[in-house]
Amino acid sequence: MATHLAIAFRAMGADILQVWSKDGKNAGILAALTKAEPISTWEALDLNADYYIIAVNDRAIPMVASQLKGVKGIVLHTSGATSIDALAGIGSGYGVLYPLQTFSRTKSLDLKQVPFCIEADRTETFEKLSAIAHLLSPLVSEVSSEQRKVLHLAAVFACNFSNHLYHLSSQLLEQHHLKFDLLKPLILETANKIQSSSAAEVQTGPAVRNDQHTMEKHLDLLKNTPALQDIYQLLSNSIKNTHHL
Amino acid sequence: MATHLAIAFRAMGADILQVWSKDGKNAGILAALTKAEPISTWEALDLNADYYIIAVNDRAIPMVASQLKGVKGIVLHTSGATSIDALAGIGSGYGVLYPLQTFSRTKSLDLKQVPFCIEADRTETFEKLSAIAHLLSPLVSEVSSEQRKVLHLAAVFACNFSNHLYHLSSQLLEQHHLKFDLLKPLILETANKIQSSSAAEVQTGPAVRNDQHTMEKHLDLLKNTPALQDIYQLLSNSIKNTHHL
Repeated sequence: MATHLAIAFRAMGADILQVWSKDGKNAGILAALTKAEPISTWEALDLNADYYIIAVNDRAIPMVASQLKGVKGIVLHTSGATSIDALAGIGSGYGVLYPLQTFSRTKSLDLKQVPFCIEADRTETFEKLSAIAHLLSPLVSEVSSEQRKVLHLAAVFACNFSNHLYHLSSQLLEQHHLKFDLLKPLILETANKIQSSSAAEVQTGPAVRNDQHTMEKHLDLLKNTPALQDIYQLLSNSIKNTHHL
Repeated sequence: MATHLAIAFRAMGADILQVWSKDGKNAGILAALTKAEPISTWEALDLNADYYIIAVNDRAIPMVASQLKGVKGIVLHTSGATSIDALAGIGSGYGVLYPLQTFSRTKSLDLKQVPFCIEADRTETFEKLSAIAHLLSPLVSEVSSEQRKVLHLAAVFACNFSNHLYHLSSQLLEQHHLKFDLLKPLILETANKIQSSSAAEVQTGPAVRNDQHTMEKHLDLLKNTPALQDIYQLLSNSIKNTHHL
């Protein structure tokens, strides 16, 4: 995420002064990409930047925040699961700039399509944060720390768990000498459909039809993989409950 | 599905002679679209067509098949979950033409992107079926009834269940006055990613990091919805097992 943000900020004309990383290696790569100075000690930190963006592992945020106490600029973290309070005590203003998207270092991504959730410690910070977020994407929403927690959880359901279902499905196919490629268009169309329809309305499959016969055949096919049977049963029951069957 | 197939066959120059439906109403609409004769009794059936395509509810297939015993053309069903044997006894040749895609009557769809799984009772039928399937889409695979069952089950995991997770996620957001729109780009990118990467390799989220702290916070957020807690726990454990955590 650091890579995508730094490149986007640089593309919109911002100077990236420094890139810090613990081992210096990742900092070196990103610094080279953005013509910044790579640093790996806190002593080397420039205290006069306008913004400090923390894009590290959630657990490392308190440590990094504690090192940024004396800076003059606004300090932002980018974590979905971390409260704004993790930055409390930074007198120069602080906030959250959370891009709701999955990033991989090697795949480019159009940030203009990414929703950014922002939150700030005070109005003055919020206005500055909102302005720079809008330079990255038109999709900017004010989301509180409490709401962001729920958003992050909802993303686990909609994305992390879906991705795992793709994996389980690919394993099933592989065991029966079938290519996962066969399912890819259907997976894409399923994600496409809910861009304009409610997921409950477009639900298909045996559970929403309460098609007991097919569900029993499916459970029988899974008889050697009880873990998959459990998932099948639980999600089918949840679909039935949703649709009052 | 009947609508999409009939329109595609008509577009490629085939004559749709008749459209049967039990109540005559759906037949009427589709017949008008494809310049066919709508029928609702079996006595009115033209016995001299080249192909008879059964696109009805899975449970109605044996009934329709029994009515088609005397026809001269090839009889095809289009069901993922039904064996080719449901058509046994049709002497003129029979098979399966299963489009692996989700259809809605109102949304147009490019069939050229849809994988078709085909199976036939004999080589002669297979060759004819393969030829007409290739007119619809370049993505044609021979898939046996046994394999098709697994494919259908895999689609339940990858698509029906994912869609339900989208729904659960939208409910969570709604309860906290957040718009589901925020998640839509992430959902689409998640489905996009596995078009070119393996799902296991691109798995993200707390479970694959074995991030106990975040998972506990998530379960706590779900404490008033035990059904969602169960799903969270089961799928997180499945992710951990997949990645040997």
